[in-house]
Amino acid sequence: MKDLAIQFGVKMRERRKVLKISQDKLALLTDIDRSYVGRIERGEVNVTLEKVYQIAEVLECDAKDLLP
Amino acid sequence: MKDLAIQFGVKMRERRKVLKISQDKLALLTDIDRSYVGRIERGEVNVTLEKVYQIAEVLECDAKDLLP
Repeated sequence: MKDLAIQFGVKMRERRKVLKISQDKLALLTDIDRSYVGRIERGEVNVTLEKVYQIAEVLECDAKDLLP
Repeated sequence: MKDLAIQFGVKMRERRKVLKISQDKLALLTDIDRSYVGRIERGEVNVTLEKVYQIAEVLECDAKDLLP
């Protein structure tokens, strides 16, 4: 299931880059710890559905678009 | 975010019923504790992406189809 986390992290980072939002800003807007945002993007953590939706909201996309 | 967990739980239960799989069997096949399966379906827990995919695999559907 590690692949899943990695693929989610890649999609999240891609979308963040499209919007030109820094990890810091994303952390602030999602109210997720900054270091945790980095860990999510590197696929190091098993993110919860709640966080997926929080992130998708800030990244102005559908949560489904961030899934592998 | 409680709505999110509830909506996921409803969709998961609906799909499980379509396949005529019991909570017990789903628990066995996903290797998720039986009582936890019940809690997920009632929207009581903030499920991880990994579990969403485990559940979707057993329910023979796309993980995205289980999301609100």
